[in-house]
Amino acid sequence: MSRVRIHNFSVSLDGFATGEGQSLETPFGHAGTRLNEWFFATRSFQQMLGQPGGTTGSDDAFASNWGPGIGAEIMGAGKFGPPNWQDDPEWSGWWGENPPFHTPTYVLTHRPRPSLEMQGGTTFHFLDATPADALKAARDAAAGQDVRIGGGPTITRAFIAAGLVDHLHIVLVPILLGRGVRLWDNLEALEEQYDVEAVTTSSGVTHLTFTR
Amino acid sequence: MSRVRIHNFSVSLDGFATGEGQSLETPFGHAGTRLNEWFFATRSFQQMLGQPGGTTGSDDAFASNWGPGIGAEIMGAGKFGPPNWQDDPEWSGWWGENPPFHTPTYVLTHRPRPSLEMQGGTTFHFLDATPADALKAARDAAAGQDVRIGGGPTITRAFIAAGLVDHLHIVLVPILLGRGVRLWDNLEALEEQYDVEAVTTSSGVTHLTFTR
Repeated sequence: MSRVRIHNFSVSLDGFATGEGQSLETPFGHAGTRLNEWFFATRSFQQMLGQPGGTTGSDDAFASNWGPGIGAEIMGAGKFGPPNWQDDPEWSGWWGENPPFHTPTYVLTHRPRPSLEMQGGTTFHFLDATPADALKAARDAAAGQDVRIGGGPTITRAFIAAGLVDHLHIVLVPILLGRGVRLWDNLEALEEQYDVEAVTTSSGVTHLTFTR
Repeated sequence: MSRVRIHNFSVSLDGFATGEGQSLETPFGHAGTRLNEWFFATRSFQQMLGQPGGTTGSDDAFASNWGPGIGAEIMGAGKFGPPNWQDDPEWSGWWGENPPFHTPTYVLTHRPRPSLEMQGGTTFHFLDATPADALKAARDAAAGQDVRIGGGPTITRAFIAAGLVDHLHIVLVPILLGRGVRLWDNLEALEEQYDVEAVTTSSGVTHLTFTR
């Protein structure tokens, strides 16, 4: 059975998955890159950029699970571009001509547009749909492989709250952002639906896995 | 120099340090004992109860740091008793005739009462004071030893926000309470004032230390 997976999803100690004030210049708002430094250091991330190098220790062991077995991604409008990217007919995402997804990728937005075929196997499809309906479309496209929920926090929380997520990898970064978009709101007793494991790595982050 | 320390302070993944609905029967509200199971299992806790047994591994290594070197404790009204304990002139805390503090213990309340000398060296003093003024009184009483901030979350957050805490040991419990009293509100960038370390133990909790 095709699973629904979330990987490398970083949150601050106070539960924020992105900062306040997102814009073209500051995709993560006032958080800057602080939630993602652990990930940027890994070989998995460097490979996404087509670059050599990067760490190959325990953070990379987690990071490297992001790609294998994934047949489609679903992301929220807030991940695809800065606020009001829908007003720009030329906007094609943050990732250049060859995005790192390499699968059909569903962007949830209340203002859909025609599909956009990129290099390297990524095609962006724009859907105004519920999480469950978006998942149906993505599952069909994934042809038996797993579906990744790619963020941001609002869409991630919606998929978790709807009980649609089978594998949830959260990375707790020991910083306090104070403001931004929270992941954990209204998910009381989530742990009862999963096996939960935690492990801290030498970078100082704690990897939490919720599996079922 | 006498330090200000916080130990064994448990929070849920979503940042709640106690549940909703605290009462005489439910001191932690709907959280029950879920935030404290890691602590109850330790030898340090069993010794507080005057009982044998308990684990002696890494959770206990952290738990055992609670007592040594402490000359006074400060706690909030919400730790000393259930809501409106101030209306009961006989209320003397949750801990029986021989409380586990064994030092002068300052209870911050807007409705102070005369001091209460218990067995075993604990004397409760009731103060309507700011964190800084309460700390002055506790430091004098501690005679060169450290002062522990004993909770609950509201008073703990106030002491942290006032920059008064030198050693902060937080235990992250991988559950989602959904509601209650949060620890982390309005503490943006706290990590910049401390060295932060994290370690996960086999009980599944993550011990975070903020030291300076």
